Amino acid sequence: MNKKEIDFAKKTSLILEEIASKSQLKEGKEAVRSILREIYRQGTIGTKSLARKIHLPIPTIAATRKELENAGLIDRVKKGAILTESGLMFVTKELKISFVNDLLCKTCSGTRIEFPYEFDDIKAKLKSFTEQRPSPNTSLDQAFGLPITALRRAYFMLQNDDLEGKKILLLGDDDFTSLAIALLDISTDISVLDIDLRLTDVISRIADENNYQIKCYNHDLRKPIPDELMGQFDTVLTDPPYTVPGLELFLSRTIQALKKEIGRKIYLAYAHRAPNDLFDFQQVVVNHGLAIQETIPGFNLYEGAEMHGNTTSLSVLVTTSNTRTIIENEYKEMIYTGEINPTTRTYSCLNKHLIRIGTTEKIKSIEKLKELGCPICGIKDSFTRVTKEKRE
Amino acid sequence: MNKKEIDFAKKTSLILEEIASKSQLKEGKEAVRSILREIYRQGTIGTKSLARKIHLPIPTIAATRKELENAGLIDRVKKGAILTESGLMFVTKELKISFVNDLLCKTCSGTRIEFPYEFDDIKAKLKSFTEQRPSPNTSLDQAFGLPITALRRAYFMLQNDDLEGKKILLLGDDDFTSLAIALLDISTDISVLDIDLRLTDVISRIADENNYQIKCYNHDLRKPIPDELMGQFDTVLTDPPYTVPGLELFLSRTIQALKKEIGRKIYLAYAHRAPNDLFDFQQVVVNHGLAIQETIPGFNLYEGAEMHGNTTSLSVLVTTSNTRTIIENEYKEMIYTGEINPTTRTYSCLNKHLIRIGTTEKIKSIEKLKELGCPICGIKDSFTRVTKEKRE
Repeated sequence: MNKKEIDFAKKTSLILEEIASKSQLKEGKEAVRSILREIYRQGTIGTKSLARKIHLPIPTIAATRKELENAGLIDRVKKGAILTESGLMFVTKELKISFVNDLLCKTCSGTRIEFPYEFDDIKAKLKSFTEQRPSPNTSLDQAFGLPITALRRAYFMLQNDDLEGKKILLLGDDDFTSLAIALLDISTDISVLDIDLRLTDVISRIADENNYQIKCYNHDLRKPIPDELMGQFDTVLTDPPYTVPGLELFLSRTIQALKKEIGRKIYLAYAHRAPNDLFDFQQVVVNHGLAIQETIPGFNLYEGAEMHGNTTSLSVLVTTSNTRTIIENEYKEMIYTGEINPTTRTYSCLNKHLIRIGTTEKIKSIEKLKELGCPICGIKDSFTRVTKEKRE
Repeated sequence: MNKKEIDFAKKTSLILEEIASKSQLKEGKEAVRSILREIYRQGTIGTKSLARKIHLPIPTIAATRKELENAGLIDRVKKGAILTESGLMFVTKELKISFVNDLLCKTCSGTRIEFPYEFDDIKAKLKSFTEQRPSPNTSLDQAFGLPITALRRAYFMLQNDDLEGKKILLLGDDDFTSLAIALLDISTDISVLDIDLRLTDVISRIADENNYQIKCYNHDLRKPIPDELMGQFDTVLTDPPYTVPGLELFLSRTIQALKKEIGRKIYLAYAHRAPNDLFDFQQVVVNHGLAIQETIPGFNLYEGAEMHGNTTSLSVLVTTSNTRTIIENEYKEMIYTGEINPTTRTYSCLNKHLIRIGTTEKIKSIEKLKELGCPICGIKDSFTRVTKEKRE
């Protein structure tokens, strides 16, 4: 590069950095670039689709989009965002982006797994089960996986030889992965442990009605797992609270449940995180003496769950001779996102009534608000978020 | 499970363990199970295909196959291995394996990336380049990637937005990934560093002939990277020696070459390893303060390279605020597999002449032996391995 080119590259980098910092984007300038690139590729794209493609929370995308508008790089249209003329120049001439094809495999959606041909029946049946779920309790970090999420996991574990003739424990199962496995009609010994009695009740009832063998335990993981589950399992799947203490607790309990052998498997769903937070997460894994065999971004899809862009990654961890629990006894600290990062959000209903929701408010979550309706006029949808504050 | 079932499960587990131990299989009983399962699925399958599917070295598969034959579970037929009647009983009744579909996505071969439609021309052109490579120097742990390997990497990095408008360094490039990137016809600043002058010469010549801008540096990484490359790059791809010191050295040099920013990317090819060795590998990554964003098993395919079953995984690592080099100055220890684990192998040619090859012998590798021919009768192929000894 000559001097002029270097100055140019620096300037470009500064523009991206400025937008990242104004929109408080932990992921930095690369995430700003990704948003611009995705808008360039798609022509126009809504915030929700952007969040899912880029693996960022919807509020984060919304904030960055606003800064990009202020900078004159994008415009808002009915279907979402489009590049302005100077935005297009910036993307093609300065960021030098020209390739428009999305190369993520359309057959497997990047999950590496192709569904077999009997899949449609199984999916319909699982959907009839998940429709019987109660509404999610967000104070327990519940975010219900779509039926396809449970099926992807089930087929993925089957492909990896972690189900047939094996004992599997679902450590928390608001996604109904246990029922997806039962639907595969293979020989697997399935156990479910969940803190939420509503869920273990529904799973037990569906299992009884369909003659599936699923053992359900209603249990708070802050207590050590029941004695009869200690050292019993070949495979554990868990989608823990996405907090460091939550991950630590769930991994320690997972290790208690697994057979004391090298090579036992853990399937771990976890939120996409900015590099430094990803490193913290990985430290917890390494401190437990577990090795990461595989990590697939964007594997799990959820209903709602706007805080992590509706998708999380799936990792396959394996026990080694270094594997050990960190938390042995009853755990009394906070583990859930709402406890560790309590926030209060203000929403406005269609009639402009303001409603405060949050961990410490009467209504804890947007899902609950939609269910109950506006406490003033009773209207049930079209809530818009006005503010969000972190509580100390 | 009742008592009888528990005894049965224990017995099954013991049979697998015994075979694993007799065939000195580091990966343990699960790998024995995987081999039986793959034979069951395929009906009959050769050692090479087994090695590629299960990600184990060919000699390891061969040894286990022999033990499975001794145990009466499999038979040898012309096309490879098949289950005996009792083998079939064992797999279906005791291991409880019944599902025969291979669910690995056939469109992307499990790489998550679909090639765009202009792909065939690019592949043909790259093949014409790789045919100009000299023969691999195995004492430098060279194992040439197939043309598809370089293209998978190039498209994968493009999809992840790590090429357009970016500076990439190939730290070692016997796979010609630099040329695959050049063929994409996007705006990327490409540099190659390799210890082997034969390779940097061929890449430079091909680049000149085709008017590609590729900067080539002939350099031994045991010395710190050239000053002009320090802190310059957005992206580094490396396929280092698969030894702990080799990985440590290559990662430290990679970090020297990357811009000092959070979120810079490293694409790292590495051999599939048994859990404990995978943990050691991961420790090196974590000690460098790098976070693993993604790991795809079986991503890279190679010519020959029987020692790691012709395939390795690809990980995407990202720099964090903890990122640091471990090795700063000139490194004087051993890094290559042949140095750290020197072996002597005896091969027999078609005329039953015995030839010793190995790190400390005149002929260092089977590739070299095939090139030179038997020193006694000059015959050039059909060499069979007779013994392998580890030297102290």
